[in-house]
Amino acid sequence: MPILVQKFGGTSVANAEKIRRAAQKAIDATKKGYQVVVVASARGHQTDHLVADAMELNPNPPKREMDQLLSTGEQQTVSLFAMALDAMGHKAISFTGFQVGMITDSTHTKARIKSIDAKRIHKELKDGKIVIVAGFQGIDENDNITTLGRGGSDTTAVALAAAVGAEVCEIFTDVNGIYTTDPRIYTKAAKMKEISYDEMLELASLGAGVMHSRSIEFGKKYNVKIHVRSSSEDVEGTYIIGEVPQMEGIAVSGATIQKDMAKISLVGVDNKPGNAAKVFHRLAEAKVVVNDIMQTEVSSDKANLAFTIGASDLRAAKEAIENIKDEVKCDSIFTRDDIAEVSAVGVGMRSHYGIAEKMFSALAKAKVNIDSITTSEIRISCVVDKNQAEQALIAVCDAFDLDKPAEKRAKKK
Amino acid sequence: MPILVQKFGGTSVANAEKIRRAAQKAIDATKKGYQVVVVASARGHQTDHLVADAMELNPNPPKREMDQLLSTGEQQTVSLFAMALDAMGHKAISFTGFQVGMITDSTHTKARIKSIDAKRIHKELKDGKIVIVAGFQGIDENDNITTLGRGGSDTTAVALAAAVGAEVCEIFTDVNGIYTTDPRIYTKAAKMKEISYDEMLELASLGAGVMHSRSIEFGKKYNVKIHVRSSSEDVEGTYIIGEVPQMEGIAVSGATIQKDMAKISLVGVDNKPGNAAKVFHRLAEAKVVVNDIMQTEVSSDKANLAFTIGASDLRAAKEAIENIKDEVKCDSIFTRDDIAEVSAVGVGMRSHYGIAEKMFSALAKAKVNIDSITTSEIRISCVVDKNQAEQALIAVCDAFDLDKPAEKRAKKK
Repeated sequence: MPILVQKFGGTSVANAEKIRRAAQKAIDATKKGYQVVVVASARGHQTDHLVADAMELNPNPPKREMDQLLSTGEQQTVSLFAMALDAMGHKAISFTGFQVGMITDSTHTKARIKSIDAKRIHKELKDGKIVIVAGFQGIDENDNITTLGRGGSDTTAVALAAAVGAEVCEIFTDVNGIYTTDPRIYTKAAKMKEISYDEMLELASLGAGVMHSRSIEFGKKYNVKIHVRSSSEDVEGTYIIGEVPQMEGIAVSGATIQKDMAKISLVGVDNKPGNAAKVFHRLAEAKVVVNDIMQTEVSSDKANLAFTIGASDLRAAKEAIENIKDEVKCDSIFTRDDIAEVSAVGVGMRSHYGIAEKMFSALAKAKVNIDSITTSEIRISCVVDKNQAEQALIAVCDAFDLDKPAEKRAKKK
Repeated sequence: MPILVQKFGGTSVANAEKIRRAAQKAIDATKKGYQVVVVASARGHQTDHLVADAMELNPNPPKREMDQLLSTGEQQTVSLFAMALDAMGHKAISFTGFQVGMITDSTHTKARIKSIDAKRIHKELKDGKIVIVAGFQGIDENDNITTLGRGGSDTTAVALAAAVGAEVCEIFTDVNGIYTTDPRIYTKAAKMKEISYDEMLELASLGAGVMHSRSIEFGKKYNVKIHVRSSSEDVEGTYIIGEVPQMEGIAVSGATIQKDMAKISLVGVDNKPGNAAKVFHRLAEAKVVVNDIMQTEVSSDKANLAFTIGASDLRAAKEAIENIKDEVKCDSIFTRDDIAEVSAVGVGMRSHYGIAEKMFSALAKAKVNIDSITTSEIRISCVVDKNQAEQALIAVCDAFDLDKPAEKRAKKK
């Protein structure tokens, strides 16, 4: 019998009624002939409440104890989920991270999965039970409870799907799939039928926010078919999969916007080996997450070095840079906190020419000024004025026909 | 360094302020030169909330899942407790039942402890940490979480004290010790300095209610010195210990009353082997807990069989008895639900004569009618009219000088 993994987030299990609705989905899947493994998050705002309880006692709680505390949220959900299934007449059993041998490293609050022992799960599935596993949590080699950090339950679900050899890993969420861009800005945005892991990674890290990038990396590594779908509507969502031939037919699959960005430019840095490393080492020490880095030579021994960060990190980043300014012989520092980044993403870019030019023209036609540009193999990003951000996104979407799903655009050509 | 186990119940850790106060007690004990192991229960009404959450989904939840759910309450307390200690500048580490190898049998919701692996606790204590262990919970041999049932955290504390070789097991509670009788009825009741396990067992099972009998059985089995004391006042409480010679000097250590009792009498039962067993088998099937059993022969082949039960079980018990009435050839059934049981308890009874007579005389002088009598080696119990219950208890207390602590009475003689 094929195995299906179903993941329900906190809002999908927030109360008894929602737990019953989620349990019904699991039962429906068994009726379609699947063995079902459910992964569940903590109910609604449970985790927030626990964090508040901790903060009341210790504003800087030891991470091991934080994991010990927070992991109870998911444990409560899975036992309640099993009770709901039992009441609905279906055999079920719940498991915590340690009970399914979800071994992680010891990096508390953002541990990485090392291995999963799927034996017990297979045994219970064979016994006709729906197996419910607590998301977000694992255990290290010394029996300490760990948690996987943001988006951890998605990672649990995808990792379990890989470990048990599931046909599909369904991620139930409050959107009905992944769109070519943010429909709140570009109302004509089209739902995608499929998207590749690599594209989803670019979109996720750029803030599309449906799934955390670590779970997608896991999916890519173990080739797990991920189905992002609505927990309230019974319609097909979007499949995240390896690349498929027709994807090559379209250059741009989606576009995103990141607001609340800031940019720091170091002008006239001494261009010698190690200087850039020094700068980013200081930023890492200051716990600043750097998005994009741009460097250009301005003379044989001088370069301009710029990078974008979240606006909330600007103060810390600036302080760190001021401290190293003299050491790297930087002439002056410019900062901007009124910028946004518009990106077009698509695996098709690898085999298509003229994509960058098309994007720049679209922005020019919309009278959007481009501050700076970075690219990856499957992404082009332009830093623009914050107050032109939405019109920039709309221009890019129009240019690449993002009002139509990819399969329609592919046929057109 | 000597080891001290400190147990804090749900009311003693109900909120942040109380957790800090309990944590301070643990720190104080380290300053007195102890290595400290803390056992904590779920905060305040957490367990009730979780039970309500479960009932909303399943009025008859699978016991394994109930244990999986309820064990999170204690897990939350111990991690918060460790965070509080950390904030107060003391190294600490929290453990769940499985993390300290608290192996139990698989009787979910009332499991029995089979073994404890104290290695990890000793290691952390040696490392200068206060170790906080979740009460009430364990794990069976298949990694299923179990709970120990009512009073489970006391049992955890006493069992841990035995496993780590603690000098004393302190039970912090909302009373400042164990009294010769209920001070709400007999205002002159004296606090005991010491009481033997056996006496405490009789008092606990008779409803004195400070500690659950299973934890005292554990203490007796492993000779753990238990100190029942106040969580709000810093005064010596009562030590529960093995028998000490001076205890023999006094016949009666304490007295109790059990209200809300009922009694069923089977008159003229065929007195042949197996009939009594049949009756109590039926009662067990009906989940009726029987307190005391009295049987008297009325002729060579007929006997009267009576037993006391909690008043709330009367209906179920009566139904069960009606069903077996003919099979055991019982002539008639009488029931009473207006009774109470007054008991005097003392290990000294073993070596003192005339205790029963003294008790009966005291009741007679107080004009209390005795319905029936049962005794154990260290207890005499009389069934009396419910509306005479309190005056009966006062008469017994006066007769045995229970207004004075045992050590004073012993000296007097």
